[in-house]
Amino acid sequence: MTNIEQSSAVLKPVDLIIDARWVATVDANQSLLEFCSVVIHHHEIVDVLPTTTAHSKYSASSLVSLGEHVLIPGLINLHTHTPMTLMRGIADDVPLMDWLNAHIWPAERAIVDEAYVRDASTLACAEMLSGGTTCFSDMYFYPQATASAVIKTGMRASLGLPVLEFPTNYAKDADDYLQKGFDAHDSWRAHALISSTIAPHAPYTVSNQTFEKVLVYADQLNLNIHTHLHETRDEIAQSEAQYGVRPMRRLLDLGLLGPNLVAAHGVHLLEHEIDQLAEHGCSIVHCPSSNLKLASGIAPVTALVKENVNVGLGTDGAASNNRLDMFAEMRLAALLAKGVSEDALAITAHQALEMATINAAKALGLDEKIGSIEVGKQADLTAVKLTDVNIAPCYDPVSHLIYACGREHVTHTWVAGDLRYSHGIFANIEPIELKEIIQTWQPKLRQYKH
Amino acid sequence: MTNIEQSSAVLKPVDLIIDARWVATVDANQSLLEFCSVVIHHHEIVDVLPTTTAHSKYSASSLVSLGEHVLIPGLINLHTHTPMTLMRGIADDVPLMDWLNAHIWPAERAIVDEAYVRDASTLACAEMLSGGTTCFSDMYFYPQATASAVIKTGMRASLGLPVLEFPTNYAKDADDYLQKGFDAHDSWRAHALISSTIAPHAPYTVSNQTFEKVLVYADQLNLNIHTHLHETRDEIAQSEAQYGVRPMRRLLDLGLLGPNLVAAHGVHLLEHEIDQLAEHGCSIVHCPSSNLKLASGIAPVTALVKENVNVGLGTDGAASNNRLDMFAEMRLAALLAKGVSEDALAITAHQALEMATINAAKALGLDEKIGSIEVGKQADLTAVKLTDVNIAPCYDPVSHLIYACGREHVTHTWVAGDLRYSHGIFANIEPIELKEIIQTWQPKLRQYKH
Repeated sequence: MTNIEQSSAVLKPVDLIIDARWVATVDANQSLLEFCSVVIHHHEIVDVLPTTTAHSKYSASSLVSLGEHVLIPGLINLHTHTPMTLMRGIADDVPLMDWLNAHIWPAERAIVDEAYVRDASTLACAEMLSGGTTCFSDMYFYPQATASAVIKTGMRASLGLPVLEFPTNYAKDADDYLQKGFDAHDSWRAHALISSTIAPHAPYTVSNQTFEKVLVYADQLNLNIHTHLHETRDEIAQSEAQYGVRPMRRLLDLGLLGPNLVAAHGVHLLEHEIDQLAEHGCSIVHCPSSNLKLASGIAPVTALVKENVNVGLGTDGAASNNRLDMFAEMRLAALLAKGVSEDALAITAHQALEMATINAAKALGLDEKIGSIEVGKQADLTAVKLTDVNIAPCYDPVSHLIYACGREHVTHTWVAGDLRYSHGIFANIEPIELKEIIQTWQPKLRQYKH
Repeated sequence: MTNIEQSSAVLKPVDLIIDARWVATVDANQSLLEFCSVVIHHHEIVDVLPTTTAHSKYSASSLVSLGEHVLIPGLINLHTHTPMTLMRGIADDVPLMDWLNAHIWPAERAIVDEAYVRDASTLACAEMLSGGTTCFSDMYFYPQATASAVIKTGMRASLGLPVLEFPTNYAKDADDYLQKGFDAHDSWRAHALISSTIAPHAPYTVSNQTFEKVLVYADQLNLNIHTHLHETRDEIAQSEAQYGVRPMRRLLDLGLLGPNLVAAHGVHLLEHEIDQLAEHGCSIVHCPSSNLKLASGIAPVTALVKENVNVGLGTDGAASNNRLDMFAEMRLAALLAKGVSEDALAITAHQALEMATINAAKALGLDEKIGSIEVGKQADLTAVKLTDVNIAPCYDPVSHLIYACGREHVTHTWVAGDLRYSHGIFANIEPIELKEIIQTWQPKLRQYKH
């Protein structure tokens, strides 16, 4: 037996080794590793170690060398409406109520069905994968159609079971929404990459009685609750007129506030409301682009973080952003917090990265599985090349990720160890499919354009 | 003689025809043309007409067909410090005074010389050209070294002749700065693509006596004045302590306010100051990323525009942005104005595009030459592809440019009719040169890293 055979005899076979110039683990110590390898087997991270030793310990079926890249946990878009992606730019520079009443709602009434949702979500998944996003938390009609796009494209998702009082193409009343939601939930239960939230749309579209049912079902099914909260001043004034209290107080009184509540926006929050969110362990999804674009305002992120409220980041739908681009949200979250608080230390680059990864995983109750690069977690990973001319030179990979890079610097996206996107190519999506989706729906939607 | 020969005999020979799906002219009527051609000869736009007729009227040496693109005026970065590009990310998430005192100034004292400035400006020009920027207004030491980078890369620039009281590697006192500036100005006078501004750094670094000289020279040489103004609260408090008035009042009293004043930032402006800027026809350079990142605050852009102050956009230096990316500034300017004013109509997509083109041209006194796509102007043009998966579908090319696109969607950049960048390739810059620039300077600068 030769030396080579002896040495290879002790190598442990694994599925994949990724050698990276840098690994931003987003673990509790904010560890930034250099010249390290992430070892993946059966969808999981089984080792993280110096590259020099990795190859004398493991033998991989597949090897990827990232000599100029930082490897980060796959980004998590914590609040979006993926089927609105085909409505990207349909109504820009218009006030919120006009946006909804004259453009978005009429388009939805006329167009939205199961086929539409599947197609639009497929396009959204392609956009997100190509920008380094591996998981998203969605809220829209026909979630089973979004599930089929998620399964096809190989993403991870937490899909909301939507609940409203008013009738839509999808369901006729709150009980119908709930029933359809549970059917959808059952349909994807066997799927390892899909989980559910129960998603009452917002305090202004859901009655007390329905919120009470939501609470019971969330408890029985062990589901997180995903809702919109305090996005605009109008909804607060309307709640005060109708219920005599601000929406968050209503949710508090109904018993909705708790560690399983994931509230999108939180733009308008009083000091004691921030304290209550902290006390009850709620999560807030900061959506800076959408909040600015719809002129809702600027969420008090610095105060939320200071009070230890768990804050994730979301793009909201493509009709109010107009991107599903977590790089844009990370940069904007870090910049905006500094400018508004006039404190250059408010929301550091690493904090912005945490919001888009581990904080979002916590909000979804998935932090044992995803959100950081640690042994035992699923291999949801994104590689970002840091040497392109338009971002050179690089002194600090994490600050570079947030302030200099864009989603165009993403080179590889893995979900549960499977390569789903690399250099313009999707593992499971053909360019012609996306072209056909656009050719099918754009002409129908164009008439609702601003 | 055949029919073909007859027909070709009457075709007028020109240098270049660009056929475009859309042309956003940024003319006074905000004209958006479809299926039109821009005809270029001897560096100038000589015709803009429907593509169907263009080819029966002109015969071009060079033809570019942009079937999925919008052609826009080349973007103008109205306030930057290009030689700081090699300091990108050297000190993030630190307060302004620490940023300057502990990182930027020590690095400048140790490193900055003519060779450094030439190299860093070359890298900056590459970044800007690849992102659709054709012209920039600069302010830094050794402007003749920046001029050599501008000439080499084929950009257009307005270079500041810097003036300060304190000594640097470049000059020893205000008179020395002025003298060196005039020598630099003389050195590039024959160059059609380079113009000059006189650039007193800021009211807190320039004495009254020097400002008076600046005013005389600006008048004699017919130069615009480029300065920093009201960027931070500190500089205002300091001026009140030292001079008994706010900095802008000092400039007013010295006679500096006028249509040739281009003031960067204008973050902290009182209502009567905005009125005075309007009355005197001054221009403000809004630098939203830098103002947020350095925690300076948010400029009152909506009020400035409402009072008809001419507002352009700038990236500031790459050490406080950390990009030279006019797409990022256009998007942020439009979003931020809406969010701060809680008015979804504040700064529309077209207004943001105007700020990055024609408004900037006006500020530089170059609006007869550049800033819009009109017959008689120089052919500074940028093509942006609107059909990539991550921005599809497109309903409105201008709103798409601002809210959905990034600089990565730029496919071609022409300066005065010459193609300077296309699909990752620069006409006059080899990739190896940029690599060598980074390898030369990054190790020297690394020790000043935060």
